[in-house]
Amino acid sequence: MTRVYLDHNATTVLRPEARAAMIAAMDLCGNPSSVHGEGRAAKAVVERARAQVAAAFGADGADVVFTSGSTEGASLACGDQNLQGSSIEHDAVRSWITEDLSVASDGIVTVADPGRTALQLANSETGIVQTLPQGLAVTDATQAFGKLPIAFNWLGATRALISAHKLGGPKGIGAVVLRRGTEMATQIKGGGQEMGRRGGTENVIGIAGFGAASEASARDLANGVWERVEILRNMLEQALVAGAGDTIFVGQSGRRLPNTSCFATPGWKGETQVMQMDLAGFAISAGSACSSGKVRASAVLTAMGYDEITAQSAIRVSLGPETSESDVLRFADTWLAKQKTYRARVACV
Amino acid sequence: MTRVYLDHNATTVLRPEARAAMIAAMDLCGNPSSVHGEGRAAKAVVERARAQVAAAFGADGADVVFTSGSTEGASLACGDQNLQGSSIEHDAVRSWITEDLSVASDGIVTVADPGRTALQLANSETGIVQTLPQGLAVTDATQAFGKLPIAFNWLGATRALISAHKLGGPKGIGAVVLRRGTEMATQIKGGGQEMGRRGGTENVIGIAGFGAASEASARDLANGVWERVEILRNMLEQALVAGAGDTIFVGQSGRRLPNTSCFATPGWKGETQVMQMDLAGFAISAGSACSSGKVRASAVLTAMGYDEITAQSAIRVSLGPETSESDVLRFADTWLAKQKTYRARVACV
Repeated sequence: MTRVYLDHNATTVLRPEARAAMIAAMDLCGNPSSVHGEGRAAKAVVERARAQVAAAFGADGADVVFTSGSTEGASLACGDQNLQGSSIEHDAVRSWITEDLSVASDGIVTVADPGRTALQLANSETGIVQTLPQGLAVTDATQAFGKLPIAFNWLGATRALISAHKLGGPKGIGAVVLRRGTEMATQIKGGGQEMGRRGGTENVIGIAGFGAASEASARDLANGVWERVEILRNMLEQALVAGAGDTIFVGQSGRRLPNTSCFATPGWKGETQVMQMDLAGFAISAGSACSSGKVRASAVLTAMGYDEITAQSAIRVSLGPETSESDVLRFADTWLAKQKTYRARVACV
Repeated sequence: MTRVYLDHNATTVLRPEARAAMIAAMDLCGNPSSVHGEGRAAKAVVERARAQVAAAFGADGADVVFTSGSTEGASLACGDQNLQGSSIEHDAVRSWITEDLSVASDGIVTVADPGRTALQLANSETGIVQTLPQGLAVTDATQAFGKLPIAFNWLGATRALISAHKLGGPKGIGAVVLRRGTEMATQIKGGGQEMGRRGGTENVIGIAGFGAASEASARDLANGVWERVEILRNMLEQALVAGAGDTIFVGQSGRRLPNTSCFATPGWKGETQVMQMDLAGFAISAGSACSSGKVRASAVLTAMGYDEITAQSAIRVSLGPETSESDVLRFADTWLAKQKTYRARVACV
């Protein structure tokens, strides 16, 4: 039986538009910094993609500085400031902040000084969406971009991190978007690329894919694709509740990404569930992808006040634009059967 | 008439093997950090490419740490040390070194303390090849990798920078190769990717292309492709000498990359030549690509003792594996005609 991929927050399928743009860019032999015709053709692809990303992110007039992804983006956007933040930020951001902001039980962060704070727009594990205060220094919009309508120009943040592979572009390309006229210290120096903000020959093929994926994801948003996904996500959660009424859903009462469900069966370790479901043909995760394989409780859940056992027992199911009702219902049936087996085994001990 | 691309040191054509590997990798939807089947499949592509790069670079048993290219690589490999170097290093390296090593008129750098020095293997503008001392801290092998036989394990350097797009891979992917067991400070932090040395979701498609291009370029080297290119490069230089005996060739007497020719007609600015030849259908450069458009004398040539006027008047012609005899001879004819026009105009003034 075909496998069912339900780990779209870790990384998602390459969109056909991105694939086509990348293959077309493969024929360009020039370096965007070169002044000859081949160089200018490569530069044109980069600038067209920059405009596509800016338009999809509601960032006309802002600067889009291409990076190798949000992890580099976090280093660039947070590394030159002394920022506050909370422990629900992604590790890439947590590496650069002082973790001193508290998180309420509903996953919402209390910001004290927006101009000195990094705050994610949506959480990768729970999907919980924050309301950003005006004047925020940095927002990590990696998970939100493509899944929620966003207008950077109205968000109130000075800098934002985005990444192509979360919205159907390739891995290894992203951007820091920053309000025009603001400064940012260069970290990767050398050539004067990206207006001197980020050196290095541009990832032309990846950038072309990022641009095309951004445009396609904006079109999907406008066409209500994520409303359909949200209905499926809710259908999944209803099926799980019907089969296992004591399942703990994280962040279900507040605003969440339309595609994300995080739930726990205390005692049944998330990593075990991931492996069992993988063998049964379903790709899901316990925590964010880069923490995979590390046996530890989710820092996001412990920050929200869940005990260690519950935080170790959570899994994330994240749907994509192509996920079907049958995918979701097959997942629910299989998971409920596994959970029943787990509970029977525990009851025997 | 078809354009002739003679700027392969700026960036070269994507090899068919790289293209095929990239298109195949587009079908993988997993994140290499995920533990499920889709994640492991993506991880396998990354690790296969890592082995291909290591084998082509003669670096079995060394660590290949993927970066977004040599500019990031320079930041990673040089940023945590206080290194000496000379002004013929690429800007990406020069950003991190104290320029205090002298350059002889033949382009060779005198190294005082190898363990505290960054020294390129081959120069991007002149093609001049250095003999590396044992115990060298960092070598920028970006231009040499793929064009010269290299065994990192015997080079004597602790760290080396390499980049895919100089040998027929895509732009935006490269690596720092380092001797196993040596330390290197992490700059892009976050997920534990690349054994904790470089965070961020891996550029799977780019890495697949880098691996395939490395393997193909090693095969080309073994098959004598660059010996053929060297014959064409020498044929070009002979044609230019025959037509303009006073042309100044840089580094011609020593060891050079087989594909590179750097030559000057004092007074006829390099940028002007690049534009004139572009209009005539030839892509060449004046200096390295990322300095393009900046009207200034080549720092490489001034370091070798050339006066400002000569250093402003140099161009670089760099051949690729597919360059033909007709490409080279058409270039020589066109350039000689333009030079004649330039000289006639100067004589009239």
